[in-house]
Amino acid sequence: MNLNRTPIAVSEAVRRVISGLSKLPVETIPYTESYGRILARDLEASMDVPRFNKSAMDGFAIRAKDSEGASGENRVSFEVVAEVPAGATSRYELSEGEAFRIMTGASIPESADAVVMFEQTRQDERSFSIRKPFTSGENIARQGEECRSGDVIVPAGTLINPGTVAALATFGYKEIEVRKQPVVGILATGSELVDIDVPLEAGKIRNSNGPMVRSQLQRMNIEARMYALEADDFDTLLQRVKQMLNEVDAVITTGGVSVGDYDHLPKLYESLGAKELFNKVGMRPGSVTTVSMLGSKPMFGLSGNPSACYTGFELFARPALLKMMGHDRIFAPVLDAVLDGDFKKANPFTRFIRAEIDYREGLIYASPAGFNKSNAVTSIAKSNGIIVLPGGTRGYEKGDAIKVMMTDMTSGIDHFDI
Amino acid sequence: MNLNRTPIAVSEAVRRVISGLSKLPVETIPYTESYGRILARDLEASMDVPRFNKSAMDGFAIRAKDSEGASGENRVSFEVVAEVPAGATSRYELSEGEAFRIMTGASIPESADAVVMFEQTRQDERSFSIRKPFTSGENIARQGEECRSGDVIVPAGTLINPGTVAALATFGYKEIEVRKQPVVGILATGSELVDIDVPLEAGKIRNSNGPMVRSQLQRMNIEARMYALEADDFDTLLQRVKQMLNEVDAVITTGGVSVGDYDHLPKLYESLGAKELFNKVGMRPGSVTTVSMLGSKPMFGLSGNPSACYTGFELFARPALLKMMGHDRIFAPVLDAVLDGDFKKANPFTRFIRAEIDYREGLIYASPAGFNKSNAVTSIAKSNGIIVLPGGTRGYEKGDAIKVMMTDMTSGIDHFDI
Repeated sequence: MNLNRTPIAVSEAVRRVISGLSKLPVETIPYTESYGRILARDLEASMDVPRFNKSAMDGFAIRAKDSEGASGENRVSFEVVAEVPAGATSRYELSEGEAFRIMTGASIPESADAVVMFEQTRQDERSFSIRKPFTSGENIARQGEECRSGDVIVPAGTLINPGTVAALATFGYKEIEVRKQPVVGILATGSELVDIDVPLEAGKIRNSNGPMVRSQLQRMNIEARMYALEADDFDTLLQRVKQMLNEVDAVITTGGVSVGDYDHLPKLYESLGAKELFNKVGMRPGSVTTVSMLGSKPMFGLSGNPSACYTGFELFARPALLKMMGHDRIFAPVLDAVLDGDFKKANPFTRFIRAEIDYREGLIYASPAGFNKSNAVTSIAKSNGIIVLPGGTRGYEKGDAIKVMMTDMTSGIDHFDI
Repeated sequence: MNLNRTPIAVSEAVRRVISGLSKLPVETIPYTESYGRILARDLEASMDVPRFNKSAMDGFAIRAKDSEGASGENRVSFEVVAEVPAGATSRYELSEGEAFRIMTGASIPESADAVVMFEQTRQDERSFSIRKPFTSGENIARQGEECRSGDVIVPAGTLINPGTVAALATFGYKEIEVRKQPVVGILATGSELVDIDVPLEAGKIRNSNGPMVRSQLQRMNIEARMYALEADDFDTLLQRVKQMLNEVDAVITTGGVSVGDYDHLPKLYESLGAKELFNKVGMRPGSVTTVSMLGSKPMFGLSGNPSACYTGFELFARPALLKMMGHDRIFAPVLDAVLDGDFKKANPFTRFIRAEIDYREGLIYASPAGFNKSNAVTSIAKSNGIIVLPGGTRGYEKGDAIKVMMTDMTSGIDHFDI
């Protein structure tokens, strides 16, 4: 057993994990199923937007030149010769003093070049008058002014959000190419763990890390497969992980990475021929987090400590999986926040504390979860972010400025900001 | 047709929508499917946590009194009589100078009351010595110190996040009661709209609002049903919406709410006997957003303008649906941000602008999407938040302090903060 672990900086650990990963293959899916996926190809405009000169207002389409000289004292009148509803157009050629009644979004007939809003007119049954001149193009959205056919609208690597789906629909992309989603296997190790429906005997606890990590994956829209050990010996573990490596794109184990006597993971990696990227990180909790690679498949050895497990997933597994999915913004935003409770411990290493995040008057407030033992379980069960305290700092007090890693957002940033 | 619409304040509009809604029924689901759902009952601790006195460290369990007087000059020695791995305990009764080797998480045997960390000892094969006295309880996590059986861990109305799932697992809740998710029907109206696979003729555009709203619902884990009109007349519309009201919990229509001649929704609500909550809101865009109620079912008449449609959904439909789901934090956080581009228009009414949000050095930056026509389509396709500019303000410049409604977070706040 390797007890001489050398801790590396969190940022270096993240760099090692990310740098060795490749993107999963591309697949074609209906655009209706694309929300939350990652674009594998640039999305190009398939036409000009607007596709035709269209009315930006409900009103009357006129020839601008016919409005010359209009004023309050010299109202200019127009006769309404036809209507152009949205979804239609007209080939009628306007003569001087003629106008179309036109609705927002309707195609401007060729002979018109300005739109007068209803509110700018005094109307009779089939005519109206105006008190100001209009310039060519007024209240018209010009063909191609928002984008030209062939423009890259959304680059490959972007998470498809509702606005992106609207763009896919606008440009007629019924099917699109996205990266495959990884399938992730979860194996909770530890002889103290029992399943949820087993009565608890002395010394046993229920497996909560496995379900927690599965939920962290669900939050990313990633399918998890749960695995279990029928016996707590090395050969069983080895066979199970080999099976997982055949069936999934990434393996997450929880527990089994401390220096305790009953921990097998380092030996496991060795037996598999996996490349250990690191086995100790300069952070608390989770210093004994281990990540290794077997070929292109990452294996995350997260701590059995629930907070370390949660943080280890968000720090290492989340960006790694997003990189495999082809995402170009794989890191969670780290934002300024106000500490909403005391945290008196010194921080010899970078410290990550699960937190209950609240929002008041535009600011983010973060209460450290699990620090006050009397409400540890409650605060952890409600935590929705991670406080990041730099190494080398002393205790913090309520009201201090701190940083929070936002773990419940779909948006991300393109660099590790800790 | 009612052209005399009286605008009401956004906050009043939201209040009217929210106040009339009731919660959907409760259903029981496996805890493995609970991520993202809303707890319908308080989650109570089913046992003390920790459930037993357990070791907080890897080391040796001793009787504290045996360590009295230990110092660098007067090391006290112990004999290791047994091992207690995690998941086990021991009934052996320690005598003076005896110790258990014990792993983190293991149950402290009754006769021990302190744990010495490995790092605090000098070890021989079957014994070790220490250079300081230990107090009773040192390095021991005491039964019930984090919570007591019966404590409310997470109150009803809370969104189930990964930490909540861990709590469900810890306390053995294999099934839990949550509120049903609403089923929402979407109907895009407008004779200019065609489906994604129909070639575009002059004056036509593809239906992008329908797919966009469906994605906004997917982001909330809500099932959407798409409806269409086979003809653009009032009777077809009326029959289709009646059908929707039979099949779904809430109806969202897009388009058909302006003062244009071809708009039918106000008459529709009247024919259905629905109660109109408002038909004009003091905001831009989306001033003609309409919400009405038929019994307990809300009908959201969102604008056909894509930005107004997007914002109308987030402002009105999202909190309404979350209220129906029993959520107690139904509003999106509104956070301080830095404007990352000029926005020179005056704002006679509260203005909502879709925005590309970025995060740099702890701050939130928001670029108004769709304002510069030359990249309108791109910026809208990538937008992931909404800038909120108060009514009565002048143009804003890059670098100005503004507020952003965060639309891509699962966390929320319990009051409308605009």
